[in-house]
Amino acid sequence: MGRAIDVLGDRWTLLILRNATMGVTRFEGFRAELGIADNILSNRLSRLVDAGVLVRVPYRDRRRTRHEYRLTTAGADVLGVLHALADWGQDHTETSPPAAPMRIIHHACGSELAPGGRCAACERAVERDEVAWVRPWRSPDPMPLAEPA
Amino acid sequence: MGRAIDVLGDRWTLLILRNATMGVTRFEGFRAELGIADNILSNRLSRLVDAGVLVRVPYRDRRRTRHEYRLTTAGADVLGVLHALADWGQDHTETSPPAAPMRIIHHACGSELAPGGRCAACERAVERDEVAWVRPWRSPDPMPLAEPA
Repeated sequence: MGRAIDVLGDRWTLLILRNATMGVTRFEGFRAELGIADNILSNRLSRLVDAGVLVRVPYRDRRRTRHEYRLTTAGADVLGVLHALADWGQDHTETSPPAAPMRIIHHACGSELAPGGRCAACERAVERDEVAWVRPWRSPDPMPLAEPA
Repeated sequence: MGRAIDVLGDRWTLLILRNATMGVTRFEGFRAELGIADNILSNRLSRLVDAGVLVRVPYRDRRRTRHEYRLTTAGADVLGVLHALADWGQDHTETSPPAAPMRIIHHACGSELAPGGRCAACERAVERDEVAWVRPWRSPDPMPLAEPA
């Protein structure tokens, strides 16, 4: 637990991993979504690459080769921590003004996931690629999760 | 999720809550266990009290009234986040040298808890007061968890 806290116990790190889970891969994408300073973002991305949570993958941008940041298997597995945080936030924090919370659903049947990753309705153990997030303040459409590289 | 990250997404905060879950309540206790500077510890404890995660409770120390820090219900519920971190750490980090990992068990039957809080052996949904942590590098004895104030 202490080692996981050393890697993941940081506000920007968790926000970056939340957004990576939603499919953000590029430096500019994280910066635009999070409003994070360039030097802090660089630092956190490097640390996550060093820890094996993200991997740098080259891509072509016009004539230049640039890099994007994709989840590794370890990065994809941070989902359990993110879901535990979402559950806690829903139970113990409030928005002002009150707003519909994020939902974590089994995409196929549309029902909420219970803690531990079982579907509350059909009771199946739901794999990552069957999970979607719904963030009603952004869009009513379920958002599938990024697959690891 | 963002609101939970705002409250809990900090290394010292998570280490304090881990130790509070193990029954540490006093300033000196956190300081001794964590090796944390006084000003940082004061800051994090105050923030956790303001966020409703810990509550200050008076106690008598010889002739003085002092305060200890107890988990609220919201603080006790951070257990889901701590367990998700422990699961991730066990799957994706290594100790050097290799060592037996922390175990999260159903005290009554001694079996591991599966993610989501069910006992892997008897499959019961295990309540907080039936959970114990075993940290073999400290002691082979299961350690019951602190109850909320």
